[in-house]
Amino acid sequence: MSKRVVVLALGGNGIQPSNSKGSYEDQFKNIDITAQQIAHLIESRYKVVITHGNGPQVGTIMTQMAAASDSVPEQPMRICGAMTQGQIGYLLQTRLQYHLLKLRGAPVPVCTVVTQVVVDKDDPAFQNPTKPVGSFYSKEEADAVAKTNGYTMKEVAPEKPKPWRRVVCSPKPQDIVEIDSITQLLDNHVVVISCGGGGIPVVRKPDGECEGIDAVIDKDYTAALLAKKVDADYLMILTDVEKVAINYGKPEQKWLDKLTSDEAEKMHKSGEFPGGSMGPKVLAAVDFVRWGGEGAIITSLEKAREALAGKTGTHFTK
Amino acid sequence: MSKRVVVLALGGNGIQPSNSKGSYEDQFKNIDITAQQIAHLIESRYKVVITHGNGPQVGTIMTQMAAASDSVPEQPMRICGAMTQGQIGYLLQTRLQYHLLKLRGAPVPVCTVVTQVVVDKDDPAFQNPTKPVGSFYSKEEADAVAKTNGYTMKEVAPEKPKPWRRVVCSPKPQDIVEIDSITQLLDNHVVVISCGGGGIPVVRKPDGECEGIDAVIDKDYTAALLAKKVDADYLMILTDVEKVAINYGKPEQKWLDKLTSDEAEKMHKSGEFPGGSMGPKVLAAVDFVRWGGEGAIITSLEKAREALAGKTGTHFTK
Repeated sequence: MSKRVVVLALGGNGIQPSNSKGSYEDQFKNIDITAQQIAHLIESRYKVVITHGNGPQVGTIMTQMAAASDSVPEQPMRICGAMTQGQIGYLLQTRLQYHLLKLRGAPVPVCTVVTQVVVDKDDPAFQNPTKPVGSFYSKEEADAVAKTNGYTMKEVAPEKPKPWRRVVCSPKPQDIVEIDSITQLLDNHVVVISCGGGGIPVVRKPDGECEGIDAVIDKDYTAALLAKKVDADYLMILTDVEKVAINYGKPEQKWLDKLTSDEAEKMHKSGEFPGGSMGPKVLAAVDFVRWGGEGAIITSLEKAREALAGKTGTHFTK
Repeated sequence: MSKRVVVLALGGNGIQPSNSKGSYEDQFKNIDITAQQIAHLIESRYKVVITHGNGPQVGTIMTQMAAASDSVPEQPMRICGAMTQGQIGYLLQTRLQYHLLKLRGAPVPVCTVVTQVVVDKDDPAFQNPTKPVGSFYSKEEADAVAKTNGYTMKEVAPEKPKPWRRVVCSPKPQDIVEIDSITQLLDNHVVVISCGGGGIPVVRKPDGECEGIDAVIDKDYTAALLAKKVDADYLMILTDVEKVAINYGKPEQKWLDKLTSDEAEKMHKSGEFPGGSMGPKVLAAVDFVRWGGEGAIITSLEKAREALAGKTGTHFTK
């Protein structure tokens, strides 16, 4: 029997703890724990593609670039995204190699692929930049940044002394430029890390040229697209809760074990899942099972193994 | 007949012009020209692995990290290296895809692999850090940096107002961790970009764990190792001169068309080739042809195509 294919979407909390400023030591320790969990999850029964968030890392690089902009030129956001694919990919890759070696007693190839993801230039998201990125600014600073760099600035945190941030568009992923390489590696039983941060966003011109743009593609939507493209059996979205809940945080809160795509969509439409966090995860799961994926699971990293065995997590079916 | 395999080692000048501060626009334009040259070189007759330098980019990231170190933690040099593999890999990859598409009329897969390169923990280089990296400091600043970070600092440019820099070791590359993935992609006719900046340096412990370290592996030595590991026919080292010369810059300067490994080694021993630039390139070429490679060529990016056709460049044979 050929091995089943799983796409794992790793939340930011699997890389940088939310209470950390992002030191190398914090990230290394956290990624090491993540890699150990994933190694156990993979064992030898699955072919695996891993994708991951990069929000805090891109934010850090943007802060560092801004701080030195008098002496060295700042790079556009797409370059920051490419950098984090190298940075996080390397750490995940090296720790996965180690934990897989320990588990199996022989080296298991793990490979990070620098990945571009195509978005549609006519995506309505381009009319309305919503995704805050980088540092916080005062009104005056924000005006100056907008003037210098042409960025769209928005007051996103009125309660803060510096409430303004740059906002970028968040278009939907349409295609994965390096999908052939990803599939070939997977076919050869390589554990693949790809589409980091949702992918480096590009627009495909009529002549086929891919032009890099500054935007943020939701990593869970990209994970669903990736799962479809590699013909995966399962999509696992790992986050900081064991299950999806309705009435989250209220007395009548209820954890969900199973959801059909219709049930999930109905709940989403009624406003159950917040836009910035659980919403896209639920929609990505729905997208994948409607396409024909056997199942999508939302759970925590710690419970991933039990969830794949059907013992916990929220399971989505068509 | 199966396609011949070429490993291309791209000098820093193929990425960032030496007179540039490294803006995105400068790097993009330069990499675009490089990619166009390489696309023509590849045509459809070769399987190609590309490796590249990353010195200026790592230097820039270190400057940016230092500038923001009060607010966000600096990352170790290995992380800067991993970042540049994403950064330069993405740009090379996207422009190669474009120029290959234009030339062939169909997409050609190009894939950047984040690569770790193993060095020997007993390499004598670890006794003597020689490679300057990052910013320049005054004596007082250098002392403070050494105290805070434990770096080895050295006065490398006595003529400058800030003559001190951090120096790191430059051990020899021994193995390429991701070689299986690189070979599999190459076998499937993917143009592979790997071992950027000589690779992310790691030491392999007795239990097989690869531990990242801060060092600089010479990218030409890594290119020779890579060429051997992928069983390449040719190693092409691209630099800013069309041929290797003896008595370089003197009235009796002589360009060299052909060299046996013994001739090249003899010239190297007599001090013909400077340590920081042509020396490692010549030794890498010698290493590859002695191993059994059909030929090694040192030439400029502009002349690469003619050189591969045997019309120019310095050709090394066993």
